[in-house]
Amino acid sequence: MILGAIEGGGTKMVCAITDEKGNILEKMSVPTLSPEETIPPMLEFFKGKNIECLGIACFGPIDLNEESKTYGYITTTPKTRWMNFDFVGAFRELNVPIGFDTDVNGSVIGEATFGKYKGFKDGIYITIGTGIGIGVISGGNLVHGMLHPEGGHMLLVTHQEDPMPKGICPFHPNCFEGYASGPSIKARWGKNGAEIEDDAFAWELESYYVAQAIVNMLMILSPEIVILGGGVSHKKDVLLPLIHKNFKKLLNGYIKTEKTENPEKFIVAQSMDDNQGILGAAIIGLNAYNQKQQK
Amino acid sequence: MILGAIEGGGTKMVCAITDEKGNILEKMSVPTLSPEETIPPMLEFFKGKNIECLGIACFGPIDLNEESKTYGYITTTPKTRWMNFDFVGAFRELNVPIGFDTDVNGSVIGEATFGKYKGFKDGIYITIGTGIGIGVISGGNLVHGMLHPEGGHMLLVTHQEDPMPKGICPFHPNCFEGYASGPSIKARWGKNGAEIEDDAFAWELESYYVAQAIVNMLMILSPEIVILGGGVSHKKDVLLPLIHKNFKKLLNGYIKTEKTENPEKFIVAQSMDDNQGILGAAIIGLNAYNQKQQK
Repeated sequence: MILGAIEGGGTKMVCAITDEKGNILEKMSVPTLSPEETIPPMLEFFKGKNIECLGIACFGPIDLNEESKTYGYITTTPKTRWMNFDFVGAFRELNVPIGFDTDVNGSVIGEATFGKYKGFKDGIYITIGTGIGIGVISGGNLVHGMLHPEGGHMLLVTHQEDPMPKGICPFHPNCFEGYASGPSIKARWGKNGAEIEDDAFAWELESYYVAQAIVNMLMILSPEIVILGGGVSHKKDVLLPLIHKNFKKLLNGYIKTEKTENPEKFIVAQSMDDNQGILGAAIIGLNAYNQKQQK
Repeated sequence: MILGAIEGGGTKMVCAITDEKGNILEKMSVPTLSPEETIPPMLEFFKGKNIECLGIACFGPIDLNEESKTYGYITTTPKTRWMNFDFVGAFRELNVPIGFDTDVNGSVIGEATFGKYKGFKDGIYITIGTGIGIGVISGGNLVHGMLHPEGGHMLLVTHQEDPMPKGICPFHPNCFEGYASGPSIKARWGKNGAEIEDDAFAWELESYYVAQAIVNMLMILSPEIVILGGGVSHKKDVLLPLIHKNFKKLLNGYIKTEKTENPEKFIVAQSMDDNQGILGAAIIGLNAYNQKQQK
């Protein structure tokens, strides 16, 4: 099959033609300016490629409720030019089934379908970069619910030695994103994560917040696996061992399974060279195609 | 149809014969002593009743992994006489399909099938009593994952005016159960919840912890509804308005939907006169029956 895929991010939009086996046949990207500037070259890219479906994995918040009048829209984003933009509607002229989901749900379904740990039915993908988001699979299905998960705004206990006890989120003094996103690292230490030395306290602190968030995800959703992605996770060689240590410390033996006892099998880095999002988007399109066939 | 149902609790085990429409035809309960004392009268109750399936909703931790050698067992409970007890195995002689899940998953499927808010596909049931547990439905399915949710051990931020900043959980100084269960209320105030006056600070504190836990559940799982049950929730007229107030305060406008703006539609009390667990257990049995028919 020939699948179309879009990974819609806040800085760029990636478009690809793939097959259903995880091969990327063609790929291009455009900067995320305004819809008027960004969408036309994307549409042009897909035309004449004989795609059989299109999957869109987009930054949020977005409307995933198929019964809603604004299904397929980006909703209350601070990127004002994209607020209330009908993303799905912009691609209807391609006349193929369109699947629509969050960027992080794209990443989690990409990993579940093609990644090193593929086949999991209950898993969470955490992206830590400009913001923090989570994509969630429960019982084999992508989680939407009332809206969609917004794991970056989970409330966390402040580390006693955090030099910035009030995080940078404008909504919450102590949420995950306000403490542990790329910009929060910069606000706290005056430099980007990439410039911070491997043995700095910054990474102990970062790993404490990530581990605490994962403990709470474990208690609420009981995932088999937690996969870290995004810019900050490029520090994985430093971060992962510290996250594993803090995870065990915070869990304190309450749940004893092979995975909680060996957190290096439970909390892992993304395994697809940052192609999990675009290949997951293709699967989201394929699911829409299959749903249409069943009707 | 004639369905058998067991709600296995730490103090008593309730057995019932129901139909598939939520009518309880016969009911009895036995105290939870040892398996040798408690199981035989339960078995006896079901014999000769022509039940077509049996659903067991049991206190945990339990093994729900159908591929595990100890599927159907109670595992590492502090109730030592029930540790490693093969609960499902004890009822195999009834020779009907048996469904097995947590007590709280029983309650959430009971409410989703027969309760005032029935029909929800993404919802959480929180029981607050001797312990705190959560039952979770995501995309219409009961959540198991690696083990099953253990929402009582989510880590929470300590209230600045909590006179007991270290909670009573032996594993975690600051988890939901350690701060907000019945025994923690007793440890903090020297009396049971039922004896505490309606305008006491105890309820502001309790509602703060419950609301904080619900904010985190919303961020991770995006439920449409959160249903409170258990002994402490009998204080619902005092607690619910305080929970709604603290929920809005902690969420601070980050997610704006009809439900988050009107939390009295989002956070509600159990609606089935404490029959949600036993009727949910019957549905868990019915699901096992239907699965067997499909094979």
